[in-house]
Amino acid sequence: MSDIYDDQNIFAKILRGEIPSIKVFEDDETLCFMDIMPRTEGHCLVIPKTPCRNILDATPQQLAACMATVNKVANAAKTAFDADGISLFQFSEAAGGQEVFHLHFHIHPRHEGVAIRPPGTMGDMDVIKANAARITAAL
Amino acid sequence: MSDIYDDQNIFAKILRGEIPSIKVFEDDETLCFMDIMPRTEGHCLVIPKTPCRNILDATPQQLAACMATVNKVANAAKTAFDADGISLFQFSEAAGGQEVFHLHFHIHPRHEGVAIRPPGTMGDMDVIKANAARITAAL
Repeated sequence: MSDIYDDQNIFAKILRGEIPSIKVFEDDETLCFMDIMPRTEGHCLVIPKTPCRNILDATPQQLAACMATVNKVANAAKTAFDADGISLFQFSEAAGGQEVFHLHFHIHPRHEGVAIRPPGTMGDMDVIKANAARITAAL
Repeated sequence: MSDIYDDQNIFAKILRGEIPSIKVFEDDETLCFMDIMPRTEGHCLVIPKTPCRNILDATPQQLAACMATVNKVANAAKTAFDADGISLFQFSEAAGGQEVFHLHFHIHPRHEGVAIRPPGTMGDMDVIKANAARITAAL
């Protein structure tokens, strides 16, 4: 069944501190960290700290908490990168574009005339860390 | 300034009943209706009933209400179209992909191997109405 939560997914491991992440923001209910395959400068992810697979099984509370963080981080990222806009993506199940099965929202700072890059290319960790610091500084 | 809300936008007119929409779901705080330029079968939009431009100026309450409706409608749409997944898009400002400047979330039922169509093509109203009825029946 598609709606089973597997606690061995990579974001569950990040939440448990078993693998590292480049953190941007954290509160009681949510974590924001950098996507290590960034499709835009400043591409980051917001997740709930409690388990859920995606939009289909998320509770209103998990969604509300995530979106409050998305709003904060999106504004900070827009400032940090002097962006012209934000694109927000949330993919549910493989057919919807989901690759890690813990609910996450992709925040993409956007600039006029600059396309989102194709997925799947690992970023430069020093650049990603510097970008995280820029967002954090704008929060 | 980018964050001014213009109450002459098309979704504000829909909310005031000045122009028609193909309604899917409504509660006190949100409205869901069909996109008339559907990029997937069942493509629909969730908006708050109160004014805000996009993710950048939305309140936590507006976002929470929208996402509770997104969760409901996404599940219904997945059932209605026997979809394999859902893609959720939210565009803020023109550079982010936004065309109507009232906060909205795009719900796309997805099927394995079927790409999202390019934007900008008007759909067949009878098909869109039938698709709305399928989602409503699954709610």
